[in-house]
Amino acid sequence: MSGRVVEELGARVMDITGVAPSSHHHSESLPYVQKVGKPRRQKLWTEIAATLKETFFHDDPLRPFKDQTKSRKVVLGLQSLFPILEWGREYNLSKFKGDLIAGLTIASLCIPQCINFVKQDIGYAKLANLAPQYGLYSSFVPPLVYAFMGSSRDIAIGPVAVVSLLLGTLLQNEIDPSNKEEYLRLAFTATFFAGITQATLGFFRLGFLIDFLSHAAIVGFMAGAAITISLQQLKGLLGIKKFTKKTDVVSVMRSVFTAAHHGWNWQTILIGVSFLAFILIAKYIGKRKRKYFWLPAIAPLISVIISTFFVYITHAEKHGVQIVNHIKKGVNPSSVNQIYFTGNYLVKGFRIGVVAGMIALTEAIAIGRTFAAMKDYQVDGNKEMVALGTMNVIGSMTSCYVATGSFSRSAVNFMAGCNTAVSNIVMSCVVCLTLEVITPLFKYTPNAILASIIISAVVGLIDIEAVILIWKIDKFDFVACMGAFFGVVFVSVEIGLLIAVTISFAKILLQVTRPRTALLGKLPRTTVYRNIQQYPEAMQVPGILIVRVDSAIYFSNSNYIKERILRWLVDEEEQLTKNSQPKIQYLIAEMSPVTDIDTSGIHALEELHRSLQNRDIQLVLANPGQVVIDKLHASSFADLIGEDKIFLTVADAVLTCAPKTNEP
Amino acid sequence: MSGRVVEELGARVMDITGVAPSSHHHSESLPYVQKVGKPRRQKLWTEIAATLKETFFHDDPLRPFKDQTKSRKVVLGLQSLFPILEWGREYNLSKFKGDLIAGLTIASLCIPQCINFVKQDIGYAKLANLAPQYGLYSSFVPPLVYAFMGSSRDIAIGPVAVVSLLLGTLLQNEIDPSNKEEYLRLAFTATFFAGITQATLGFFRLGFLIDFLSHAAIVGFMAGAAITISLQQLKGLLGIKKFTKKTDVVSVMRSVFTAAHHGWNWQTILIGVSFLAFILIAKYIGKRKRKYFWLPAIAPLISVIISTFFVYITHAEKHGVQIVNHIKKGVNPSSVNQIYFTGNYLVKGFRIGVVAGMIALTEAIAIGRTFAAMKDYQVDGNKEMVALGTMNVIGSMTSCYVATGSFSRSAVNFMAGCNTAVSNIVMSCVVCLTLEVITPLFKYTPNAILASIIISAVVGLIDIEAVILIWKIDKFDFVACMGAFFGVVFVSVEIGLLIAVTISFAKILLQVTRPRTALLGKLPRTTVYRNIQQYPEAMQVPGILIVRVDSAIYFSNSNYIKERILRWLVDEEEQLTKNSQPKIQYLIAEMSPVTDIDTSGIHALEELHRSLQNRDIQLVLANPGQVVIDKLHASSFADLIGEDKIFLTVADAVLTCAPKTNEP
Repeated sequence: MSGRVVEELGARVMDITGVAPSSHHHSESLPYVQKVGKPRRQKLWTEIAATLKETFFHDDPLRPFKDQTKSRKVVLGLQSLFPILEWGREYNLSKFKGDLIAGLTIASLCIPQCINFVKQDIGYAKLANLAPQYGLYSSFVPPLVYAFMGSSRDIAIGPVAVVSLLLGTLLQNEIDPSNKEEYLRLAFTATFFAGITQATLGFFRLGFLIDFLSHAAIVGFMAGAAITISLQQLKGLLGIKKFTKKTDVVSVMRSVFTAAHHGWNWQTILIGVSFLAFILIAKYIGKRKRKYFWLPAIAPLISVIISTFFVYITHAEKHGVQIVNHIKKGVNPSSVNQIYFTGNYLVKGFRIGVVAGMIALTEAIAIGRTFAAMKDYQVDGNKEMVALGTMNVIGSMTSCYVATGSFSRSAVNFMAGCNTAVSNIVMSCVVCLTLEVITPLFKYTPNAILASIIISAVVGLIDIEAVILIWKIDKFDFVACMGAFFGVVFVSVEIGLLIAVTISFAKILLQVTRPRTALLGKLPRTTVYRNIQQYPEAMQVPGILIVRVDSAIYFSNSNYIKERILRWLVDEEEQLTKNSQPKIQYLIAEMSPVTDIDTSGIHALEELHRSLQNRDIQLVLANPGQVVIDKLHASSFADLIGEDKIFLTVADAVLTCAPKTNEP
Repeated sequence: MSGRVVEELGARVMDITGVAPSSHHHSESLPYVQKVGKPRRQKLWTEIAATLKETFFHDDPLRPFKDQTKSRKVVLGLQSLFPILEWGREYNLSKFKGDLIAGLTIASLCIPQCINFVKQDIGYAKLANLAPQYGLYSSFVPPLVYAFMGSSRDIAIGPVAVVSLLLGTLLQNEIDPSNKEEYLRLAFTATFFAGITQATLGFFRLGFLIDFLSHAAIVGFMAGAAITISLQQLKGLLGIKKFTKKTDVVSVMRSVFTAAHHGWNWQTILIGVSFLAFILIAKYIGKRKRKYFWLPAIAPLISVIISTFFVYITHAEKHGVQIVNHIKKGVNPSSVNQIYFTGNYLVKGFRIGVVAGMIALTEAIAIGRTFAAMKDYQVDGNKEMVALGTMNVIGSMTSCYVATGSFSRSAVNFMAGCNTAVSNIVMSCVVCLTLEVITPLFKYTPNAILASIIISAVVGLIDIEAVILIWKIDKFDFVACMGAFFGVVFVSVEIGLLIAVTISFAKILLQVTRPRTALLGKLPRTTVYRNIQQYPEAMQVPGILIVRVDSAIYFSNSNYIKERILRWLVDEEEQLTKNSQPKIQYLIAEMSPVTDIDTSGIHALEELHRSLQNRDIQLVLANPGQVVIDKLHASSFADLIGEDKIFLTVADAVLTCAPKTNEP
């Protein structure tokens, strides 16, 4: 038996042989409370500084800089801005092998996808009017920048479907896509401000703001976006020429069936559907057998090559199969002069940039965190934001639009065995080569194949298992999830987002205004008091009502808590009168979960005390925390109810009160 | 010694003589947790319905109607709508005596005040263009309506300074006050919608919304409004003719000193200052000796009578002393046709009405609750809102503007010994008599005296003691209080309100995103585990880190909590390595304060578990509540960490883990 247990037993023996338990408990518990009774005075600025530190610098970013020489501090500073300087020193050939393979794999997945997100023929994005090369541009510069500044080792950077959709919808609201040049400039402006937003949030350490998009809302939003994007691909897949500009399911389906009269193009459908089936089967195999992980990664590229070759030799484009046609050769031109820094479009670009930047950030951080948890390393959210922001700002000046972490490509990257961000550099180089050498070869690529690739990519965003889990765990989360989903599918991307954020906030407010309270009872043969609803065998102590308040007492809930406690009392007294049991003489408020209290809360307690006095009931507090006891003393509420009415535990309080109640 | 204590001792003796404590605890605690292990499945609608009920009907308004006959239900329904039917049956002469005296007292205080709030010469309100009789109208109809529908026994209804100020400022923003007729119509429209807002909030049981204005914010706002109003009175008190229309302290003081060149009117100053001194002295005496409570109540009326008589006989109005001049005789005319139900002003009136209605509501409910707590009866917030709303809707149709509960008059009412709302009826009758008979006598009342009355009334709104208490209790509340105060004083009433609401919300968000966490240690010679910062004598158990999370784990804080716990761990391990103590093998998370968890929270726990596994540390949970344990099972997180890693108390968990750690 260990020494500590012996000590405990000793104390228990003393209970029995020596002092009576009630006085033992009493003498033992009160000193603690009284010792805390004289709170150490905190100055206003100390307290505010502590709060601010915990809000903005909870990860203590300056900690490694402590007690270092000046030159070392400079090195550390550079390393923290460019993590590559840190991990680069330990980089070796065996790590590079993994990164090379992973980089080639994600490049083969990225190139066909990225051409696609910006293609003219994809009705939805209205990035439409960006020629296909802009997708490739965005897969060249941003990953390169990220590799130097980012702290995630597994994320794959580039344009992604959801952000492209959102950006396209928002841009289209402001400007007609047929107005090519201005549209392009506004896209760069939005990208610039998306980057500025991200970097600013990181720099001012406001990263916690993205936590307000709940997991459930994101699941719903992503699934909705995936369906919207897939429906839009019907245009390419069915070879429809006139297509709606709206994104909601009703408009799209009407568009599809109206086009049916003019005849869908069967050659296009044949190509599209067969390659879609091929990619999906490859995906399925890759999921089932982990050693074939490269199959789904390579399938899109194979499809593009085969179908392009097929169209080239059969001249299918003359039978109504739409093809990509021209892609401009060469790497990113500068676009600094194209960003609007003045005028009306500045404001519009800013507004679009803020929204797109936030969504891109949410996706990237979620991905970074997921894979970091898998390999057990830390991703610094705020530093990550600065990296993503810088990347997009530089991107906006080199003809890129908003890039972020792609979930599907990051997963492939992870499974292909990437070790560091070097895989992004490899991908970037491959894209660069593609731009310089082989873009003309894409001329005969049929649009249908690109639609297939998109559909197969976004289908993975619909996470039915996650939805089922959400349903099981939290019904309120489920409502938020469905709200976001139906908002996106039936109305628009922005409305879906708005619904998700609104429901998430409503949930917080509900939590803050209507906290739970519970009646406690004693578990038989212990001194432990627990919720009588959770533990039906817990027994209430006659003459004493024990209530636990499950929240900080703030202005937003203080009145409710007061009224709720009085209601427990009234209910209980009714019950007791019915059974002609003894009246309640003590109300013990278990304060363990009450983490804080403010002036409104103190007022509510005072009112409660006054109401109880009028009923000849004593208010007793058990285990108030440090902050709460400080404030009880500061407000002299502790004096009002009496110091001897504050106990260390419910058991102590009951032991002291019980002898005075008419116990059976 | 009571039976229960004996039983407890028995259990302890068993511990020593029979089973070893560790297995005893084990066998005793696990059954409870496992019993909860199979959560009773709640249907979605059951859960949502329960949440909605607790949010909107937490006071169970239909409870008295249960098990009653139909006719009884009708009576109860009428009584709940018109509480006068309930208390009126027990009304008697002795109660009426108290009410009569109280009613006469508040009438004598109200009449001079109410003339004043609407007077032309009070620069601030821009209700200015309402002739003085509208103040009296508003003290006639609304109190009468309230007496039938309201549930507070002590509140005194009528126009109040702060709401008049706010309404005036808002109206002035929309329409030039010199445009008399339209201005008046807009005021009635705003009053109508203020009433609609109030009644709607009550009807849909959204009363909890006004809880979002924290006590601290209200204290700051009131003090700021009091200073603003007092400064405005300098116009009347100093006899200045040209005065600024702005309300901030800088503009007003500039206005005052610019006017000094043209000469202040010394006769006006003499009258104003001497009567101000008289009223303040009366107030002071009334406060010191409770039996002279009638002195401050009657002082304003005496001042008005004496000063009016004085001006009348000396013809001071010919020496530059400004007087009231004409007040229209007769009771309220109808104003139904004057309310804008269409057009541009409808929207404006609606907007103003919503803001003014909310503020008026906050004041009335706060007053109602304060006095109800003093006499220990319940004021039903939602019912009260319906009463106040109906009163203002009827008021808007009978030439009244927004009325609410006045704090100073309610206090006088309370001290004068009112018993029921009949005191409001008495006051209403006196006001009616005044309107019908004696208004012409007010013609020679000097404006200076009215300014004095206002100043003496609003000075009481500056509650320095409350501010000191707020400073002592909660520094964040103090910042909110000062923000509201300086916003009102230096900018405007609306900005002050905005600041107050913003800071209050920021506080909620801060609470939700950055909850507290604490390391626990064992208090010597107990099995109680407490925060080692609060109880320095609490000892940490070697090889075990015990962390308490002080909040529900929601999407808004799940990542923070995960990272914070890992940071505790890293800090602790650094410390241990330094002192070459044994490594940590168990992390016990005390979950008592964790009242709820959502899907994001479960994810965070999973990530925490994974990170800990990589460090060879076991995650152990202590005392998860009912809701949490349900969700841990639903998400199969309980299976992931193992059912045997969930304990009833920290002590149980430590007893089970401790033998396996390298204890000294």
